[in-house]
Amino acid sequence: MASRPTGSLIHLNEPETLETKQYEVPEPEPGAVVTEVVRANVCGSELHIWRGHHPEVKEGVLGHEVLCRVSELGDGVETDYAGQPIEEGDIVAPVYYITCQKCSSCLNGEFHLCQNAYRYWSKPPEEPPHFHGTFATHYYIHPNQYFYKIPEGLDKKIAAGANCALSQVMFGLDETGVEYGDVVLVQGAGGLGLNAIAVANEQGAETIVVEGVDGRIERAKEFGVDHVIDFREHDTVDARAERVRELTDGIGADVAVEVAGVPEAFAEGIYLLRDGGRYLEMGNVNPGHVAEFDPGTLTRKSIDITAVVRYNPWYLHKALTFLADNAEQYPYEDLIDAEFDLMDVDEALAKSDSREITRAALVPPHEHKE
Amino acid sequence: MASRPTGSLIHLNEPETLETKQYEVPEPEPGAVVTEVVRANVCGSELHIWRGHHPEVKEGVLGHEVLCRVSELGDGVETDYAGQPIEEGDIVAPVYYITCQKCSSCLNGEFHLCQNAYRYWSKPPEEPPHFHGTFATHYYIHPNQYFYKIPEGLDKKIAAGANCALSQVMFGLDETGVEYGDVVLVQGAGGLGLNAIAVANEQGAETIVVEGVDGRIERAKEFGVDHVIDFREHDTVDARAERVRELTDGIGADVAVEVAGVPEAFAEGIYLLRDGGRYLEMGNVNPGHVAEFDPGTLTRKSIDITAVVRYNPWYLHKALTFLADNAEQYPYEDLIDAEFDLMDVDEALAKSDSREITRAALVPPHEHKE
Amino acid sequence: MASRPTGSLIHLNEPETLETKQYEVPEPEPGAVVTEVVRANVCGSELHIWRGHHPEVKEGVLGHEVLCRVSELGDGVETDYAGQPIEEGDIVAPVYYITCQKCSSCLNGEFHLCQNAYRYWSKPPEEPPHFHGTFATHYYIHPNQYFYKIPEGLDKKIAAGANCALSQVMFGLDETGVEYGDVVLVQGAGGLGLNAIAVANEQGAETIVVEGVDGRIERAKEFGVDHVIDFREHDTVDARAERVRELTDGIGADVAVEVAGVPEAFAEGIYLLRDGGRYLEMGNVNPGHVAEFDPGTLTRKSIDITAVVRYNPWYLHKALTFLADNAEQYPYEDLIDAEFDLMDVDEALAKSDSREITRAALVPPHEHKE
Amino acid sequence: MASRPTGSLIHLNEPETLETKQYEVPEPEPGAVVTEVVRANVCGSELHIWRGHHPEVKEGVLGHEVLCRVSELGDGVETDYAGQPIEEGDIVAPVYYITCQKCSSCLNGEFHLCQNAYRYWSKPPEEPPHFHGTFATHYYIHPNQYFYKIPEGLDKKIAAGANCALSQVMFGLDETGVEYGDVVLVQGAGGLGLNAIAVANEQGAETIVVEGVDGRIERAKEFGVDHVIDFREHDTVDARAERVRELTDGIGADVAVEVAGVPEAFAEGIYLLRDGGRYLEMGNVNPGHVAEFDPGTLTRKSIDITAVVRYNPWYLHKALTFLADNAEQYPYEDLIDAEFDLMDVDEALAKSDSREITRAALVPPHEHKE
Ligand SMILES: [Zn+2]
Ligand SMILES: [Zn+2]
Ligand SMILES: [Zn+2]
Ligand SMILES: [Zn+2]
Ligand SMILES: [Zn+2]
Ligand SMILES: [Zn+2]
Ligand SMILES: [Zn+2]
Ligand SMILES: [Zn+2]
Repeated sequence: MASRPTGSLIHLNEPETLETKQYEVPEPEPGAVVTEVVRANVCGSELHIWRGHHPEVKEGVLGHEVLCRVSELGDGVETDYAGQPIEEGDIVAPVYYITCQKCSSCLNGEFHLCQNAYRYWSKPPEEPPHFHGTFATHYYIHPNQYFYKIPEGLDKKIAAGANCALSQVMFGLDETGVEYGDVVLVQGAGGLGLNAIAVANEQGAETIVVEGVDGRIERAKEFGVDHVIDFREHDTVDARAERVRELTDGIGADVAVEVAGVPEAFAEGIYLLRDGGRYLEMGNVNPGHVAEFDPGTLTRKSIDITAVVRYNPWYLHKALTFLADNAEQYPYEDLIDAEFDLMDVDEALAKSDSREITRAALVPPHEHKE
Repeated sequence: MASRPTGSLIHLNEPETLETKQYEVPEPEPGAVVTEVVRANVCGSELHIWRGHHPEVKEGVLGHEVLCRVSELGDGVETDYAGQPIEEGDIVAPVYYITCQKCSSCLNGEFHLCQNAYRYWSKPPEEPPHFHGTFATHYYIHPNQYFYKIPEGLDKKIAAGANCALSQVMFGLDETGVEYGDVVLVQGAGGLGLNAIAVANEQGAETIVVEGVDGRIERAKEFGVDHVIDFREHDTVDARAERVRELTDGIGADVAVEVAGVPEAFAEGIYLLRDGGRYLEMGNVNPGHVAEFDPGTLTRKSIDITAVVRYNPWYLHKALTFLADNAEQYPYEDLIDAEFDLMDVDEALAKSDSREITRAALVPPHEHKE
Repeated sequence: MASRPTGSLIHLNEPETLETKQYEVPEPEPGAVVTEVVRANVCGSELHIWRGHHPEVKEGVLGHEVLCRVSELGDGVETDYAGQPIEEGDIVAPVYYITCQKCSSCLNGEFHLCQNAYRYWSKPPEEPPHFHGTFATHYYIHPNQYFYKIPEGLDKKIAAGANCALSQVMFGLDETGVEYGDVVLVQGAGGLGLNAIAVANEQGAETIVVEGVDGRIERAKEFGVDHVIDFREHDTVDARAERVRELTDGIGADVAVEVAGVPEAFAEGIYLLRDGGRYLEMGNVNPGHVAEFDPGTLTRKSIDITAVVRYNPWYLHKALTFLADNAEQYPYEDLIDAEFDLMDVDEALAKSDSREITRAALVPPHEHKE
Repeated sequence: MASRPTGSLIHLNEPETLETKQYEVPEPEPGAVVTEVVRANVCGSELHIWRGHHPEVKEGVLGHEVLCRVSELGDGVETDYAGQPIEEGDIVAPVYYITCQKCSSCLNGEFHLCQNAYRYWSKPPEEPPHFHGTFATHYYIHPNQYFYKIPEGLDKKIAAGANCALSQVMFGLDETGVEYGDVVLVQGAGGLGLNAIAVANEQGAETIVVEGVDGRIERAKEFGVDHVIDFREHDTVDARAERVRELTDGIGADVAVEVAGVPEAFAEGIYLLRDGGRYLEMGNVNPGHVAEFDPGTLTRKSIDITAVVRYNPWYLHKALTFLADNAEQYPYEDLIDAEFDLMDVDEALAKSDSREITRAALVPPHEHKE
């Protein structure tokens, strides 16, 4: 057997302390794919862990948003998960978790809730196949880990984040059920929020965003939002609820999407919705942060709540198709506002943490920054 | 025109102060029905108002659960709302609210949320047709107020409460979606809870009740519950969640039904459900009572919440049919444990309030108690 | 009581033989509205009856698509069915049938299938309130017959047909479930088909029409269709199925909409759909015309079929809103290509029957043609 | 490497001509399981192929209903598809097809329609792993082919057929949506029909069967059917429709299930359903057999049709659970009325074909017949 190449990965030893580790790039087992990382994004969950705020995870290989170049195909891998032929050199986007098909969630056909989703992510880097995260030069796609070739012509910069926010938004909105003519209110114009605005737009909805930061408000407008409620101006829940009613013939929003990520936003949403409205909760992902919630109002208004944390893996294909169809219409390329060499990951995380930049991409040495 | 009969109604002048008022029984307008009350039940919402705990309602005609005898039919009324021919003397159960067909909720086909549901209930008794409540000798069924003849052979004692708990439970469980084999956990074995147990049973579900009062636990067993979690024994949320997992191969309940009516119960439910579980909120109906709620856990577990406060009016027909089919199987007749002459309503309310009795029926003078 | 005005209506005495009859315009009963006809359209169902092709209906008052001016409001009518205040002189569009709330269909909440939908339509004109059809100077809107004020600024010419094709199409597509990115194939570019193209477009679908008449193909393009399959060119079911696969990566359409109105089109649809596709049947409305159908192919492809014949009445409000939002984008005003004085109804029907014109409007003497 | 055992399989060389072939039992690849057959059932599809009636399949390894004993586990196989630990000697039931996760159907989450379902079934027996069918001593379970340990205490005789009729029935009824109180009409009391009766029963439905053979009528009663329509007595579609209306207050069935397997039965169903009814088509599985169908009646009655041909693979787990819960209530053990040595498969097929027996089981030499 010829000698194997060596790759590097970024390991969090303890909060805010990263180390570059090197391992031999493994051969793919049957059903797996070995790849080179083309670019990886810094997402909120990496920041959360890096800061030490995650209740359990204090160390590990970082990174989940990624675009990869296929370098070796395991036995039996002839196509991507859309049935497109795949070969070395193809650029693919992987789902960042696996679906085991065998846990209690998979047994209900709820693949987005696979109990073993992070089976490999949680392994220490010493354990083969080592390349468990995307802040690295290589990435190992496991058997039963969905991946898709990116559509022809789709900008890599745009495609690298499709496996996180957009896929989840499309899944969440489908689970919630948006209909033509619905008023969809989005709480927060971060990455999830902007995607929610774009998708709801394309589904024929009217959109409202609740936001209080100028740059984010501008961005929301570029993503086609119809109305903005600036919470610096409408600075109480009552005032915002009143403003929503003004915009909706006194009725309230048909759908609200919580992507602000604070418990109070969740509690607020039910006041912004119409009676019988539907609420999509996606922003609060860290257990243990509570807000005062009024179930009596929930009941009186008879609101339905849907909560989603990931997505059924084939939604990544829908997301890539959405980007291919709509990337010219929405300024997706502007969402990444900084690129760093992979080895400058400390700087990328620090600047992201200080909000000096919004969203950073990491580019390994074998790639050229754009 | 011949002189009209006179009827009596019970009016709440101020908290805990009732007055009997008398009015001429009106003639029915087209589409309406004038009835004599056969029996009316005392429900939690009357107690709530009577005590003065309702934030807005401090006076009015009381009563919403009722069985009536048709005395006069308005023009055009030839059948009940199931198309069954109707005539004087027939015993009918009315829905306790109206559906206006014209408000923003009715415009969505969400009749259970009609914005004008209580249009007539809120009118002062002086205003015709006076008989707006069921603690009375007569009751006026308005146009667009659904009513159904009770099925042949169905015990009146049982049928009188069908328009409240059972109708709402059947609607709520349908909205939530119970499937054969689901584990349905019911938080609280009051009226709503017992009905939820019986209906889930008949839908092929396995049932668990969380309760802490001996009499209520006994009753739940009589209504066919499969497992009891006594919260005196399992006295923390964690302990109850652990017990649910023991009963469900470590997974959690597929469906939970909140009918305890305290905000903490709502907050607890998400810990008793499996990932991807469905939660039906019905018990907390009074806005303004909050509990600490953890949306991060909701999201991580990706639970769907459905809240219902009334029901689409045709569910009363389903409820009456359910009772006709299953009254022998479940001890519905035991749910009413005290009967009072209508004029002893003070005693009925006081004894209900002190929990000396569970559920009282009021019988007007023209009827015989059973 | 002042003397009542007299109005005229067009009665079909026997196939192809019309007679103008005159009756006193009735006063509205409680809940009803008396109107003057502003304009009424000639639809396929009138032609069908006029020709004598309807198996049972050989006589009667014709007309169901209409725009009306309110002349008298019955007791209790203060708003339209969207809660908008209504007064004399307002222009309204009525649903062309009633929903009785009491039949076996209404008892299931399936108002679109009300067993008594045509209760009044079928009455002879001698029987009050006489004005049962819209080919007339006046039209009587019954209690429980939904009607809506037309949105400000909406062209009357466009609004007059909303209560038929567009309302049904919006209901049918909602029942079928169109999602962003679906390929929706429409069999036939008549009135239903053009509306289906426009609505599917606005819901984010990609559209294909199967058509073989030049003028209709042009119209489909103006209504935004993405692809045309000309059945003169693709002149077998196999050829059309092959063409659909070419347009859909070899897969077939996600949704097909049968609005050609011939049984063979229904049988064909299952070959144009992908495995697991959804089929909306609306075009074949006359029982007794059969085609050879292959249920084995239906099963192997596991296609779901939804059939709709009317719509839940509140969809007329959605349709009027859709027109107000999109009338500038699609050439709805061109769909009516001929106007006739009401008294020239013979000519209007004859020219419609010979296909000399596509869609005619009838304008009563008290109105000005546009 | 030790020498491998040899196994036998039954191959159809041409219609009605079987040959026993012998191959070395293969080692399992990663993710696969090698098993010994415990028993295999003769199902209608094998008879269809054996007779030469299948339009394309004229040869091949027969058999799809089976119970197996695990003999070797491929790398990575530690549990069944419900997460239960698995080891040599365990008795398992496999789904009879695979789900590839990558075809256009799997890409929609419609695993029951996997385009590659029969990828291995269609391979010639010469090609490893040889044991593609269940009329054999051994059976090879592929990676991505679901299998489940049978529940403790469940009779093997009963469990062997769970992967066909019952799994499909449970899936089909869920897709169709049966609610408590629905009237479910089953067209035909064969294997699918009896299962449909039992499941609908447990879901709280009222059941009607249309059948004309005494033995099958008896069986339907044992499986709990509420009403029988004997088509020898009610010998026209009109007469059967009339009888259904008599049993349903003049309305028709809420749900009908086509499991008679003749095109005329499919065409008949729409007359037996109520307006707005739901139709589950499962019986007609062979394309190319047509019946005259009236889409105008379908539309007027606005019936929804769901067609299913297989099931999402996790329904096999639901089916096994259903049997474990209900096998004492329904005489499932009587459905197999004859057992044959595997080598007497000619006799088994001939007697099945002549209807001398209803359903045969084949038992390999290494097993004892029961
Ligand atoms: Zn991310
Ligand atoms: Zn899993
Ligand atoms: Zn009540
Ligand atoms: Zn209303
Ligand atoms: Zn009706
Ligand atoms: Zn029309
Ligand atoms: Zn597949
Ligand atoms: Zn079978």
